[in-house]
Amino acid sequence: MDSQSLADAFDAVEETWTPHLIAELNDQHVKVARLDGEFVWHAHEDADELFYVVDGDLTVEYRDDADRENAVHLGPGDLTVAPAGVEHRPVAHEETEVVLFEPAGTTNTGDAEASDRTVEDLDRV
Amino acid sequence: MDSQSLADAFDAVEETWTPHLIAELNDQHVKVARLDGEFVWHAHEDADELFYVVDGDLTVEYRDDADRENAVHLGPGDLTVAPAGVEHRPVAHEETEVVLFEPAGTTNTGDAEASDRTVEDLDRV
Repeated sequence: MDSQSLADAFDAVEETWTPHLIAELNDQHVKVARLDGEFVWHAHEDADELFYVVDGDLTVEYRDDADRENAVHLGPGDLTVAPAGVEHRPVAHEETEVVLFEPAGTTNTGDAEASDRTVEDLDRV
Repeated sequence: MDSQSLADAFDAVEETWTPHLIAELNDQHVKVARLDGEFVWHAHEDADELFYVVDGDLTVEYRDDADRENAVHLGPGDLTVAPAGVEHRPVAHEETEVVLFEPAGTTNTGDAEASDRTVEDLDRV
């Protein structure tokens, strides 16, 4: 039972695409991450994933949407939920600070082949 | 799959102590609420509850802490988790905008006797 500052959490995270755990509750994880550029296409079979942009400029693209009609654009203070099982790709148009809510154990690259972007063991902030 | 603005959500909520649903995922609810003054003491037996302050000045007090040593103070950008089963009371020292993250079906007054503060059916923003 303490308080945590999102600003301090982001100050503690230097690397991009490396989610850090800031809180856990009800078998869910709250993470902070810095994103920059395009991530890999992936889906989380059983996990919805919430993106909340604290600062920056993010698009969540959906693969099965050739015209990107349903791509979701997020600026500071905006949030969206990528539904379970739906292939998506976050694209940060500048260095972007995001908060993620998703079930504990959700891996950032989901069902994509593990790569240097995959983070299995989360550090805490 | 759309985006939602927290600022727009708070603009749509006029009443204090009336949580509104902004997103749901993985059987969890994300709510926005305006708080002002002292709430009732209560616990949520099976639900941890996350408070994230967007704007304002909030203390989460714990009943079994006579000296309020463990009271948690939150300003803008701060978050805390009130653990399941632990009696607590949010106290907003000015009108305060908070985001709540907790299991779907969690009632704002928890195990406290239902009162005019109790909100059973959430409106959406």
